[in-house]
Amino acid sequence: MTPQADSNPTQWKPANPAYEAVVRESLGRQTLMGTLGVRLARIAPGAVELAAPYSPEFAQQNGYWHAGAVASLADSANGYAAFTLAPEGTDVLAVEFKINLLAPARGESFLAAGRVLRPGRTLTACFAEVFAVTGNERALIATMLSTIIIRPVEPSPSGGRS
Amino acid sequence: MTPQADSNPTQWKPANPAYEAVVRESLGRQTLMGTLGVRLARIAPGAVELAAPYSPEFAQQNGYWHAGAVASLADSANGYAAFTLAPEGTDVLAVEFKINLLAPARGESFLAAGRVLRPGRTLTACFAEVFAVTGNERALIATMLSTIIIRPVEPSPSGGRS
Amino acid sequence: MTPQADSNPTQWKPANPAYEAVVRESLGRQTLMGTLGVRLARIAPGAVELAAPYSPEFAQQNGYWHAGAVASLADSANGYAAFTLAPEGTDVLAVEFKINLLAPARGESFLAAGRVLRPGRTLTACFAEVFAVTGNERALIATMLSTIIIRPVEPSPSGGRS
Amino acid sequence: MTPQADSNPTQWKPANPAYEAVVRESLGRQTLMGTLGVRLARIAPGAVELAAPYSPEFAQQNGYWHAGAVASLADSANGYAAFTLAPEGTDVLAVEFKINLLAPARGESFLAAGRVLRPGRTLTACFAEVFAVTGNERALIATMLSTIIIRPVEPSPSGGRS
Repeated sequence: MTPQADSNPTQWKPANPAYEAVVRESLGRQTLMGTLGVRLARIAPGAVELAAPYSPEFAQQNGYWHAGAVASLADSANGYAAFTLAPEGTDVLAVEFKINLLAPARGESFLAAGRVLRPGRTLTACFAEVFAVTGNERALIATMLSTIIIRPVEPSPSGGRS
Repeated sequence: MTPQADSNPTQWKPANPAYEAVVRESLGRQTLMGTLGVRLARIAPGAVELAAPYSPEFAQQNGYWHAGAVASLADSANGYAAFTLAPEGTDVLAVEFKINLLAPARGESFLAAGRVLRPGRTLTACFAEVFAVTGNERALIATMLSTIIIRPVEPSPSGGRS
Repeated sequence: MTPQADSNPTQWKPANPAYEAVVRESLGRQTLMGTLGVRLARIAPGAVELAAPYSPEFAQQNGYWHAGAVASLADSANGYAAFTLAPEGTDVLAVEFKINLLAPARGESFLAAGRVLRPGRTLTACFAEVFAVTGNERALIATMLSTIIIRPVEPSPSGGRS
Repeated sequence: MTPQADSNPTQWKPANPAYEAVVRESLGRQTLMGTLGVRLARIAPGAVELAAPYSPEFAQQNGYWHAGAVASLADSANGYAAFTLAPEGTDVLAVEFKINLLAPARGESFLAAGRVLRPGRTLTACFAEVFAVTGNERALIATMLSTIIIRPVEPSPSGGRS
């Protein structure tokens, strides 16, 4: 048996052929990603990788990246992995996520690889792994399971959800 | 029956009488909390509340606080709630947490109220509620369940964990 | 500040006045609840308590109730808490849940108290506490956060979801 | 990049060469596994697969396996995956787990494949996938992230933990 055989991202077909442009545009509006210095490292149907340099402004008490910074990176990777499969005119929001912090977030940079476990019309489940990268070494530091909701886009950008 | 009767924070006795100073000192070293503008709003044995103003640098694609910013605030509230009951010479780290995002993080400021559900020698379970505050109104926007590990303090601040 | 003030179950109004009958009927169809010997101990809008005797067929390796049995009880308590607020003609399914096992499930019986944190048209977030009961003593042994989806009832009981 | 490259179970070395016998002995004491008709389908260092037939006594309101039954199977798979790497004279307990229910648990049988993401002296993180099996078809129906604690074995089997 091959674990993950049923959740291979390569099997997903994007509903919106312009999925990459749509993800980049939305990611560009997430000011937290800009604040953290995040760049889109890889995008494919059902899979998004986000990379960020270590920066001392986002640390916990021992100087490692704060769990909340790690969670921010993984949450966006999972949300955008779901978004690659969403139809035109929709938006994605995390309903909930769960993160296991496996090792201290110590490294020169961090990479969160999010992928879809199962897409749905309303809810999509995603799984992310976060790695700390130092030189050529990569260590798994966190895993996240997320539930993402896909919704029609908000009618007015200035209005907001009610 | 009174829900939460068994998890009333007022029943916990701090192992370290200087718990407030220890929490404040550690919180002061969490640069992410400084970056977010967090202040300690309340501290008692087994309970910590952290407040932060809304700031546009930590937003998701619609301008609300990013789930990762909400998670950062709640994670620190839970970690320090656990830390209020920890013995001298220890440190706390989140092993994992789970957050439900109940409503968009839209408000003038945010308040995360963390409290201990059950303290342990090694592992402490905590529960946090996060509220968005606008004027006199307060809306529950997220809940978090966390597992915190209590460990002897790292021998050298410059050395780090192995 | 009073924790949980915003998630007080007494504030919820049931959409279906016959919510108790609907919950009892559905609970009666959950054969796992019958197998575990579960009874409905309390029901109110947004709140359901389920009780079950300890029974040695559902144990883990040390003779305590298995985490899966504890989770079964809490999952149904949360699902039916959500169901008390659902409109007529709908059904509830758990999308995901997270459980913290705070102490061994050792007792004469178990009580899971589930309540709604925030009801929604599609998704409802719930929180449950599970207690082990021995004589007059009650110990908190687990907490669960759940996401419940409310869906129109399946057209044919023999058909099933696709 | 190959997802999961860092969490490949084949890299783990068991601390106890008799790990399979120890797992089988403990599994034999989990009466819930016997009640569900579970058998050990595969065991390797850091990986355990458990299989169970569908049985109508463990259903939810629509006749599918209850989320609690699915969680029971996945929880034991993850716990025993952790146990394969644990030293002699120890026992494992789940601290917490989180399950995403991706599809209805409808099938002739179910298979939970648990594996270690990162082993630790005290805490081990595991990930499980649960599949519904019907004929030659297999569908991913749930994923679970677990935190397992490894503890010295209880001194007296009749005594229990305090």
